[in-house]
Amino acid sequence: MLRGKQTWWFDKRPVIIGSGAVVGPDEGEGPLAEDFDLIHPELDLQQKSWEKAERMLMEQAADIAVKQSRIEKQDLQFFVGGDLLNQIISNSFTARELGVPYLGVFGACSTSMESLALASMIVNSGGAQRVLAGTCSHNCTAEKQFRYPTEYGSQKPPTAQYTVTGAGAVVLAAEGDGPVVTCATVGKIVDLGIADPFNMGAAMAPAAVDTIQTHFNDTGRVPGDYDLIVTGDLARVGHQIAKDLLQRNEVPMDDTVFNDCGLMIYDLEKQGVQAGGSGCGCSAVVTYGHLLKRIQNGELNRVLVVATGALLSPLSFQQGETIPCIAHAVAIEKGE
Amino acid sequence: MLRGKQTWWFDKRPVIIGSGAVVGPDEGEGPLAEDFDLIHPELDLQQKSWEKAERMLMEQAADIAVKQSRIEKQDLQFFVGGDLLNQIISNSFTARELGVPYLGVFGACSTSMESLALASMIVNSGGAQRVLAGTCSHNCTAEKQFRYPTEYGSQKPPTAQYTVTGAGAVVLAAEGDGPVVTCATVGKIVDLGIADPFNMGAAMAPAAVDTIQTHFNDTGRVPGDYDLIVTGDLARVGHQIAKDLLQRNEVPMDDTVFNDCGLMIYDLEKQGVQAGGSGCGCSAVVTYGHLLKRIQNGELNRVLVVATGALLSPLSFQQGETIPCIAHAVAIEKGE
Repeated sequence: MLRGKQTWWFDKRPVIIGSGAVVGPDEGEGPLAEDFDLIHPELDLQQKSWEKAERMLMEQAADIAVKQSRIEKQDLQFFVGGDLLNQIISNSFTARELGVPYLGVFGACSTSMESLALASMIVNSGGAQRVLAGTCSHNCTAEKQFRYPTEYGSQKPPTAQYTVTGAGAVVLAAEGDGPVVTCATVGKIVDLGIADPFNMGAAMAPAAVDTIQTHFNDTGRVPGDYDLIVTGDLARVGHQIAKDLLQRNEVPMDDTVFNDCGLMIYDLEKQGVQAGGSGCGCSAVVTYGHLLKRIQNGELNRVLVVATGALLSPLSFQQGETIPCIAHAVAIEKGE
Repeated sequence: MLRGKQTWWFDKRPVIIGSGAVVGPDEGEGPLAEDFDLIHPELDLQQKSWEKAERMLMEQAADIAVKQSRIEKQDLQFFVGGDLLNQIISNSFTARELGVPYLGVFGACSTSMESLALASMIVNSGGAQRVLAGTCSHNCTAEKQFRYPTEYGSQKPPTAQYTVTGAGAVVLAAEGDGPVVTCATVGKIVDLGIADPFNMGAAMAPAAVDTIQTHFNDTGRVPGDYDLIVTGDLARVGHQIAKDLLQRNEVPMDDTVFNDCGLMIYDLEKQGVQAGGSGCGCSAVVTYGHLLKRIQNGELNRVLVVATGALLSPLSFQQGETIPCIAHAVAIEKGE
């Protein structure tokens, strides 16, 4: 199953038999709106707290993924999920609601592909027939926890990113119809010394580049083998850095092939989202909403999703630490 | 690989080729002291913050596990780890130090066996030859984050538990000499409505019971098949509740077979630790320090470690939520 140094090759080709992508109002006004399964017109989802709203996003994404899979909740054998909130409460409380054996994971915004990689490993090795993988984020819970109270309305530098309000989930199965997961490259931590949490794209770009190059080395694939290679949430600043680094390392990327979920989800010219989107929900809803539908309708045949994560905490930042970053890549392809 | 509903059967029997258990002063004065690899005489490990001290514990446990395995750090292919701190910074920063592909996990105090179960899955399925699994906790970081500033010295009810200062790590390998991991039962969330974070043993006991009974149902094993069945950190209150529940469910446990890491690690009569130990480090150091050595010297042949976790956050508690609990069980046996 191991190919090269850090890539898992899934020869049983686990199938994504259903998916759910639920978003908030800003994402619903962005260019990918038509590909989301449910758009909420308000940020609070009529819940009493932002955290309860975030959890509801996750529960709804899971419900939609299960319904689309034409199975019942009790047919799920495991749930692999995590999110940005302290002690990943959005996913743990969703796991309580689902009543399914649960493995909590955390990789900041890389959680989307970390959970998909682990779910694929479980299904591929016969550890289960059906596994749910999912993650979520909410603009206001993230602002509140990582930056300032939402009521402050504090200004941000243009390098800052806008946390996506959204949740994405997929049901991965040993058999069925749908796009398949063919391999996953697990990233290692890259920390080039950036300590500014308002410039996470720049911090995460070298980790994305490391994982992309490792993926090519491990698999023997080249950029041209993919119709699309998307990073998780490098946004405008990080995307340019990643492109430059890849160019310098002689892995040039064509602009039509290389993109970033944080750039795709919003209209950066019209929406006030600084450098672009971020958050666990960013790559999750772009992948499980937009990309899966484009694979299913034949527009895309093979994509590589390279979810990036900045593994800092407010406390590690306050104690003067730089930002350890990571990226996990998963290849999703058209099924037979 | 799946046996019954939620148990993974590891037919390749991944081997624990090395382990490290590092603890603080209180644990070093407890009854298991002689089985720990390193005991620190002071809580701060001469670091500038409790968090930096906790991270050092984790790094040292990893180093010892690697040395004992007679491999080099770069021979590790993956690291699966997590801890109690927000955004699991202790393990993410350790992963940066190690430079090994990293999968962050979170299951509160159940993280010890969650990470071991996933590492076993990876090795068993051929996803790697050598994986490091580990977790840690520190009394003062946990107090500060989950309860009150450590300087307060606030009083606690006798049902409260004392967070273990310690870190445990193992290197799991496809081949080698040492105890083997034979199966793992992944738990689901059980929440019977307890909301008091000063009585987590009571909250977690039903989750432990659920996982233990599922483990027996899935595997066909009975309590007598184990020399020892230890829960993670139910401590005095939770241990009694678990025993009573198992008795009522007609799975009676002999006192010589059924124990709890939170009870074993301290001398409850002499040390001021309320109902007993808790924290990710509790089951980790008892298992990777004490139990592994007892398996290696032939005192024990087969043990089941049922690590329990309370998946609350200070915020979920403040918002009136009850405590979702989980337990993951891993069977460790004498190798051939």
